[in-house]
Amino acid sequence: MKSILITGCNRGLGLGLIRSLLRQQQHQQPEKIITTYRVPEKSKELLALAKQHAQIIPLHVDLRDFARYDQLVQQVDSIVQGAGLNVLFNNAGISPKSTRLNFTKSEDLVETFVTNTVAPIMLTKALVPLLKRAADGQPTAPVGPGRACIVNMSSILGSIQSNREGGLYGYRTSKAALNAATKSMSIDLQGNGIMAVVLHPGWVKTDMGGPKAPLAVDESCDAMVQTLLLLNQSNNGQFLQYDGTALPW
Amino acid sequence: MKSILITGCNRGLGLGLIRSLLRQQQHQQPEKIITTYRVPEKSKELLALAKQHAQIIPLHVDLRDFARYDQLVQQVDSIVQGAGLNVLFNNAGISPKSTRLNFTKSEDLVETFVTNTVAPIMLTKALVPLLKRAADGQPTAPVGPGRACIVNMSSILGSIQSNREGGLYGYRTSKAALNAATKSMSIDLQGNGIMAVVLHPGWVKTDMGGPKAPLAVDESCDAMVQTLLLLNQSNNGQFLQYDGTALPW
Repeated sequence: MKSILITGCNRGLGLGLIRSLLRQQQHQQPEKIITTYRVPEKSKELLALAKQHAQIIPLHVDLRDFARYDQLVQQVDSIVQGAGLNVLFNNAGISPKSTRLNFTKSEDLVETFVTNTVAPIMLTKALVPLLKRAADGQPTAPVGPGRACIVNMSSILGSIQSNREGGLYGYRTSKAALNAATKSMSIDLQGNGIMAVVLHPGWVKTDMGGPKAPLAVDESCDAMVQTLLLLNQSNNGQFLQYDGTALPW
Repeated sequence: MKSILITGCNRGLGLGLIRSLLRQQQHQQPEKIITTYRVPEKSKELLALAKQHAQIIPLHVDLRDFARYDQLVQQVDSIVQGAGLNVLFNNAGISPKSTRLNFTKSEDLVETFVTNTVAPIMLTKALVPLLKRAADGQPTAPVGPGRACIVNMSSILGSIQSNREGGLYGYRTSKAALNAATKSMSIDLQGNGIMAVVLHPGWVKTDMGGPKAPLAVDESCDAMVQTLLLLNQSNNGQFLQYDGTALPW
């Protein structure tokens, strides 16, 4: 994996994934860790980290601004150049405050869907040429992060089978929809040597997960990076927990 | 089942469901078949049928206009009165023209989600008081259409497990999301004696299904009505094919 693009890197799991990549042995570290952030004032840790590590390249973008994607792809292209992009990690996501049916608002449902589902689909669409270039550049390498992978950050809350608690209409619908889109990506792009999976990070001590969560950010992110590094053809189209365990839809 | 509300009744499966209900034995026919339609000029068959059958009550509403729902609930309330509403059948849906990743448009993804997912959730939220009233009115009756049911029209294309063909990002994400929402409804509302299921109508000769589909509208709708009439506690939260076969998420 020479290059990875991770969205939503100003905090939580996005920032944790960067830190985890920097903890890997030298030969496992991507040469380019392209990261996106939306609000500069809330991204000081990311921007400070990028000053210390030349391999981190922060790009300022609001991923809901789909008209901006062409320019974003040009920026990524100029960073990865002929090698293309090995891994697109769609991590950015939100969780609406309204969770019970009686308090569910149509605007929250749509806003969550746009950020958690539409943006990963549109960014994948936009970056397919760069992912293809990476896959084509390693034609004899096995399918996996050494060629080209799409990793979409989902959640066990998007598992319909595992839903025992109800509620959470905005979050659950957006993540089930992302799971559905990822399965289509895994089929549509396999002929190009590009694989696609969805990951559940576990219940993690982030702003979204809250302080009662059993997993620290580092634990979850180290496990996700290990799972990412071991991805192979057999995982294409799967829903995997941070530690690589397969989950039901 | 004294009353049923079916959305999207101007053609296809919605119109077929009404016709199928009218073919049932007298004691199985709902006293009130409340139907919604959006474009009067495209709803002549429905409006003609309603003139012949007093039990069909057509309501003119654009279900994307969520601000209109309060008024819609008042209309339904004045029709069903003290008995409440037994069955809400969220049937209205669309399928965007763009299907392959490379042609997927963010506007199509959002529009399809609003119609196929957000509208059924918001209409369910709005009608819960009338569904509760129906369930409460039959406290000793078994859970099912004799008390209160939500039936959401999904599709096998919303089954992530069954996806072998890829593509169809807008339609698949909206239906997987509807499946996720229905599972939450089935949990959230079971304490009120209200059950919720998703149905796959089969591949049917409609405008959406096309002329090559193996099932006639009447066949699919007769089977769906039989499945609806037989719904019981064991089906709560399930994804059922038209003939009652359980499908995977």
